[in-house]
Amino acid sequence: MPVKELVTKNRSYRRFYQDHAISTAQLRDLVDLARLSATGANLQALKYVLAATPEKNSIIFEHLAWAGYLKDWVGPVEGERPSGYIVMLLDRKIAKSCACDHGIAAQSMLLGAVEAGLGGCIFANIKRDQLAAALNLDEHYEILLVLALGKPKEDVRIVPLGEDGSIRYYRDDAGVHYVPKRALDDIIID
Amino acid sequence: MPVKELVTKNRSYRRFYQDHAISTAQLRDLVDLARLSATGANLQALKYVLAATPEKNSIIFEHLAWAGYLKDWVGPVEGERPSGYIVMLLDRKIAKSCACDHGIAAQSMLLGAVEAGLGGCIFANIKRDQLAAALNLDEHYEILLVLALGKPKEDVRIVPLGEDGSIRYYRDDAGVHYVPKRALDDIIID
Repeated sequence: MPVKELVTKNRSYRRFYQDHAISTAQLRDLVDLARLSATGANLQALKYVLAATPEKNSIIFEHLAWAGYLKDWVGPVEGERPSGYIVMLLDRKIAKSCACDHGIAAQSMLLGAVEAGLGGCIFANIKRDQLAAALNLDEHYEILLVLALGKPKEDVRIVPLGEDGSIRYYRDDAGVHYVPKRALDDIIID
Repeated sequence: MPVKELVTKNRSYRRFYQDHAISTAQLRDLVDLARLSATGANLQALKYVLAATPEKNSIIFEHLAWAGYLKDWVGPVEGERPSGYIVMLLDRKIAKSCACDHGIAAQSMLLGAVEAGLGGCIFANIKRDQLAAALNLDEHYEILLVLALGKPKEDVRIVPLGEDGSIRYYRDDAGVHYVPKRALDDIIID
């Protein structure tokens, strides 16, 4: 698939066919894409926890805050929840921070997910302390991001910014999710 | 090209066929990939300065620090320098920080570059104040990263970590560049 198509299809999906199972092998393949990606000073301070079972998925689900701009929606109902997760950790024994490595790694994994017919969403709004406890993480691991993954069950469309200039995403009555994106000429500085 | 191949070919290249010109249109296509990528709370606070002329390229080149681990190498010689650059800015009028958005955007652009037969390198070690002045940037723009781009003129190979566990990249006498990467089982936590 051309990169433009991969990137365009790689929307932030928040509703899934929950009965579409993801295997641990699939998650490992995605982490391998992160492993092969650039990392500042080649430090490779990112580590990963995988979840692909209903039990472990349920634990992670409870610790995520969904779609900040959709005030009336608390997250996907049972049956439309992610089939798997990749929890991205900073290994503080290796480095105290990782600059934007987690963004690079997340994008590699999500583009790989799109290629595999999946989709996902990056979470930074996480109950970190509670999730770290629930996963029994050693103290030197810091939770950076959670990638939720599954077979997307929603229509997400990019639209131009409206006249009010708002970048808040929204849904229509049919549940179609719209994401206003700035125009190319508005983000390139001469 | 499969994502695995894109990611594998997307090494950090630091020597290029400098006479291989990159057009502004190509750089715009890459920024469009960044534009369509995920951004925290959909804020889209990243802006971009493009360089594709020898004059502007030369200005940017002067403000970058090359390959920290190669102590005897100050950077590519004339003739092997990048043919273009994308300077990634945070627009502080939109947000005070952008989490890891610049990593996500950089990866989208670099994978697009690989697909187009190019390659590049992400710079975070930048003389920011001087470069901002040289580019006449307004005060509300903060330089986050610089992407150097060109047609790669070096052989970059991923290798396992050696017995000493060092992640420092190195070159052999033939100029081949080796990048030690941790094994998949060493970055996945059970």
